[in-house]
Order: sequence, then C-alpha cells, then structure tokens
Amino acid sequence: MVLNTIPVKTDSAVPRVVICGHLGFAQAECEALFKGVADVEVMHSLSSADLIEGMQPGGKYEGAVGLLRHWNGFDRFGRPLIEALPQSVKFVSSLGAGYDMIDIGACKEKGIVVANTPGVGNDATAVTALYLIISALRRFSVAERQLRAGLFEASRVTQGRCDPTVRTLAILGLGGIGLRLAELVHAFPMRVVYHNRRPFAGAPAWCEYYGPDRLDEMLAMADVLSVHVPLRKETEGLVDEAMLRKLKKGAILINTARGKVVDEAAMIRALEDGHLSGVGLDVFPDEPVVNPRLLELPNATLLPHLGSISSDAQKLMEVRGLTNLRDLLLGLHVVDVVPECR
Amino acid sequence: MVLNTIPVKTDSAVPRVVICGHLGFAQAECEALFKGVADVEVMHSLSSADLIEGMQPGGKYEGAVGLLRHWNGFDRFGRPLIEALPQSVKFVSSLGAGYDMIDIGACKEKGIVVANTPGVGNDATAVTALYLIISALRRFSVAERQLRAGLFEASRVTQGRCDPTVRTLAILGLGGIGLRLAELVHAFPMRVVYHNRRPFAGAPAWCEYYGPDRLDEMLAMADVLSVHVPLRKETEGLVDEAMLRKLKKGAILINTARGKVVDEAAMIRALEDGHLSGVGLDVFPDEPVVNPRLLELPNATLLPHLGSISSDAQKLMEVRGLTNLRDLLLGLHVVDVVPECR
Repeated sequence: MVLNTIPVKTDSAVPRVVICGHLGFAQAECEALFKGVADVEVMHSLSSADLIEGMQPGGKYEGAVGLLRHWNGFDRFGRPLIEALPQSVKFVSSLGAGYDMIDIGACKEKGIVVANTPGVGNDATAVTALYLIISALRRFSVAERQLRAGLFEASRVTQGRCDPTVRTLAILGLGGIGLRLAELVHAFPMRVVYHNRRPFAGAPAWCEYYGPDRLDEMLAMADVLSVHVPLRKETEGLVDEAMLRKLKKGAILINTARGKVVDEAAMIRALEDGHLSGVGLDVFPDEPVVNPRLLELPNATLLPHLGSISSDAQKLMEVRGLTNLRDLLLGLHVVDVVPECR
Repeated sequence: MVLNTIPVKTDSAVPRVVICGHLGFAQAECEALFKGVADVEVMHSLSSADLIEGMQPGGKYEGAVGLLRHWNGFDRFGRPLIEALPQSVKFVSSLGAGYDMIDIGACKEKGIVVANTPGVGNDATAVTALYLIISALRRFSVAERQLRAGLFEASRVTQGRCDPTVRTLAILGLGGIGLRLAELVHAFPMRVVYHNRRPFAGAPAWCEYYGPDRLDEMLAMADVLSVHVPLRKETEGLVDEAMLRKLKKGAILINTARGKVVDEAAMIRALEDGHLSGVGLDVFPDEPVVNPRLLELPNATLLPHLGSISSDAQKLMEVRGLTNLRDLLLGLHVVDVVPECR
C-alpha cells in the first residue's frame, strides 16, 4: 500500500488530529496508524478551554479535522465545547461504549460525525461480573475482611457458602457483556437463562430465553441475577422491590451495569431481611459516593466501578478509537459511527 | 433388594456406627444409607475422651464397628485414641482428602481399615483458585479495601490491572484440583501449562506438559503460577527463592494447596521488590496466624483457608464418607480405602 495515494478527504495536505486525554497503552499503535495519514497532536492539558484556544488561528491544533476523546480526559463534550469548535473539525472518535457525555445533537448541527468503541470492554466487564458472582456465592469478600480483622477461624463457616457449578444464572439484558459472561460461566457449568424484550440473535441455544410474559418465571428460578441493561429513562429503577421479591429467597444480585438501574433502597431492604443472601456491586447510583449502609452489610462485595478498567480493555479501546479516527479521515466505512450520525 | 439378606460382616445383629462430629448437610442421606444396615449414633461431644468412654461396656457406643471422622469434629485420630478403641472397631471413614491427622500405622496394627474422600473438594478449591487469579490480576481485593476506606476515585487506576484471557496459567502439580481449574480457565481461554514429575494421565492435550527438564522454561512463560502439590517432606518449601525468581517479572502466585509448600519469606521479598505483581493465598504456613507483613502489601488477596469450605463440597464429602462407611460395613469394594490399608 502506497500511503500517499490514500484519498484523504480534507482540505489540508496533511490533516491534523488531536488526542484529548492521555493514551496509556497504544502510543506505538497510534504512530503506526497515522504515519503518512495525519499529524497527531497530544493535548497535555485536559481542559476544554485549552482545546478551544489551541484550535484558534495560529494555535497548535489549528485546522484539526478529528478529535479523539479519551475517557480519562474530557468527560464531557457538551454543547458549549462543540459549538466553539472551528468548522475544520469533522470527526469525534470517542473511547468507550457510552457516549452520553457527548452532545450528539450539537455535533449533528455542525456536521461532525461521532464514533464510539462498543464491545471492547465486554471481556473485562464479564470477568468483573464473574468475580462478583464467585465472591457473593462463596462469601469470599466478607471472609477476607474477617481474616484481616484477626478472625481467621471464626470466618471458616460452611453454611451459606456455595459454588456456581450447576446453579442458575439469570441475565437481565443479554448483549455483548452478558453473552461473554454466559460463555465464562458455561465452563462450570451454570445454567444460563436470560430476559430481553426480544431474543438476542447472537445467543447460543443453551442460553434459555424468557420473554416479557415469562420474566417472573425466570426470576423465581435464579440463584444469581446479573444486571446488564444500559441506563435509559425506561431502565432507571427497573430492578425494583417487586422484581427483587420475585427472586428465589436467598438469591444473589450482581450489578456491573449502572447503579441507577437498581432501586438501591429496595435492594438494601432485601439484603437486610435475608431475601437476598448477597450482592456483588461494581456500580452505585451516586458514584463515587457509596451508601454507607452497604459497607455494613456482611455479604456485599463492592468494587469502585472497575468493569472495564483493565489494561487489556483500555488498549483495545485506544486502538479501536484510533483506528476509527484514522478510517474516518480516510473516508473508509466505519461500523462504529453512532446510530444518530449514520 | 431385601435388606436383611445383606451379609453384614460383624458379630452383632445390627451393627453400630458413630458419627464423630456434626453432619451439616447429609442427615437425610445418612438415614437413608444406614436404614436396615446399622444403628447410627451421633456424638454430641467432640472430645476423644468422650468417644473412648462411650465405647466402654455399657456405653452408648459399645460395640461400634465403624467411625465417621468429620473434619469439623475430631481433628486428630492419633495413636492414643486409636489404641484406646475396643477391638469392635473395624473401620474409620474420614472426611476430606488429607488423612495426616489419622495415625494409619496404629490403625493397621489394630486391623482398622481407613477410607478418605478424595476429589470431592476439587470443584470448590478450583473455584477458590479462579477467584484468587481474577482478584490478583485485576487488583480487585485492594480496590475493595480502597473503596471501603473512602478512596473510590483514587482506586480506579488502569495500570497493572489485566484480564485472564489469553494469559498463561502454569499449574504446579496437576491433579484433580489443577485439572478442574484448567477446565474453568479454558473458558477465557487461558493457555494452560503444567509441571508434574510425570505427565498426568487425565490431562487433555491443551494442558501442555513441562517435565523436570523443562520446569524453568515453564516458569519463564507463566503469567500466573498456581500451586497444587500436596504437602510432603519433599514439597516443603518447594516454591523457593530460586523458583520464584525464574518466574516472569510481574507474575502472580496463587496458593490453595498448603502454606508450607511456598517459602513465605522469599515470596514476600518478591512481592516487595515487584518481581511478583501480586499473590492470592488461601493457605498460610502457620494457620490461623497470618504473617502481618502480608496484610500490609497492597496486591495480596488473602482467604482464611476456604478452599473446600462450601456447602456443595461439604455435602458431597459427607455423602461420600457415609457411603464409604456403609459399604465397608457391607463388605463391598471401597475405592477410597487409603493405599496403606489396601
């Protein structure tokens, strides 16, 4: 492939792109991807004011065609920032699956095409869910706290500890993460059942579908309910008192999706009265604040939203975001362009 | 099957057995197994003096033919106890795989046949090892401690966190537990390599064998080394300074076998200087004492010897131990008779 024959669809001979945020894992890939395609500027500041200033005539980002929004940098690409961008900017490549921090309406008004990186965190998030399932079933987190408090022998209680093998995992919202989790627990095996509004096309036959008319039936058989629905208006508080009480007594609740999908007060009541025997939570409704009551309940494993915080996931994400930005510059088809911009 | 035609090989018409320790999960199975075969006495005391006293003429265990040693009861069936048992006792069925707490020599001198329950804890122990692998690779235990200390945001660091998928697990001592762990991590997949003195007959082809002449090669490629050798004279301190230093820099050490198999001081040094990036330990050389230095090291996940502490494993173990005792009484072939008594 001769690089200078690539039809770069910009006005300048060598387009410029700006990395907003720090690349942690894909510096070498960035260099290789953009060699002969674009000049890459890395922002050393994470402030949108500095980005806007650098975009002005004579600024070091002047004429930039594309921006890479790293999740560790600018958490918001809101309307004020978007409107302040010069017309040169045609593409925003955002790292991460969610893009609620980007004002897509404002982007569309300016003709800016936005892409995201869905799926790259599936493995890391499913691994997190698997860890929480084991921890809650075997009461490992509470045991480690007891060991560290000098209660080694007192913590060695069999009652209430069980293994995933041949138990039933119910997945609420089977998508990429849920499917990956299903694959991992299939090794034990666990029986996997799931509820979506419609069957998931990618689900293997051994993932048993329970539609809207059979949700209660699924809840009643679940040893573990793992939540994987995105946060939307209609999913806020979806796992409410009524749904929790339809679970088998002693079930485990796992949430690696979003804190607000679960009614936290109802969940805590169910833990307190023993209807739930444990929870494994990576997400909370008011992060980084954690409800102090959760810290007091014995069988709660609590992680600080580490679902896709892994160097493997982050590298995949960076490479995918960089590739998307490169391909957008080159006028290639990019499957990750968000639906609103297609 | 007509029960009273079973050739019970004892002098009394209805033999008597004694459960030494509490059955936690298999009371119903106990009743079903021994109905018409033997009277079952359950000791309400756990002291060997009470057992010896009950065995005397007129005592409630007089003439007992078999004893079930529950792991939660008598931790030692030492020579003094064995020698004090009347000649009526022909069988000891011990719960658990290890039987170092039973004086086999004394039993043989008195013609007592001993059986154990190997394998029933394989799944639970492999699940424990899997949990420790994920926790150490993703630094989940330290993250939960940070969250609980109010450091939610500060703990969300990507560097140093990675996923099991496509990494290499080296198993030191592949037997039932290691093989089960291999099956579980194959789901990611992890690459599985192992070292035994000889290839393990039950290992699938994808478990790559590294014999004594290739141990160093295996250590150099391991992202995770998981220890599964039994504690014997020749395995005490097997994982020593030299072996640890042959591991890839940044490797993880997992021990669910016995604490004394690892040179703890060498392990702590390797953690302190970063040669090991983390450890996951379910066992310690001086349980229940845990070296306080381990509590201070950030990436150490520490469990209070919960390997087979699960209701699933315990029920399997109780049913197996009861079945062995019943079958010994009935003169049936019992595969679990320990090698020394065959």
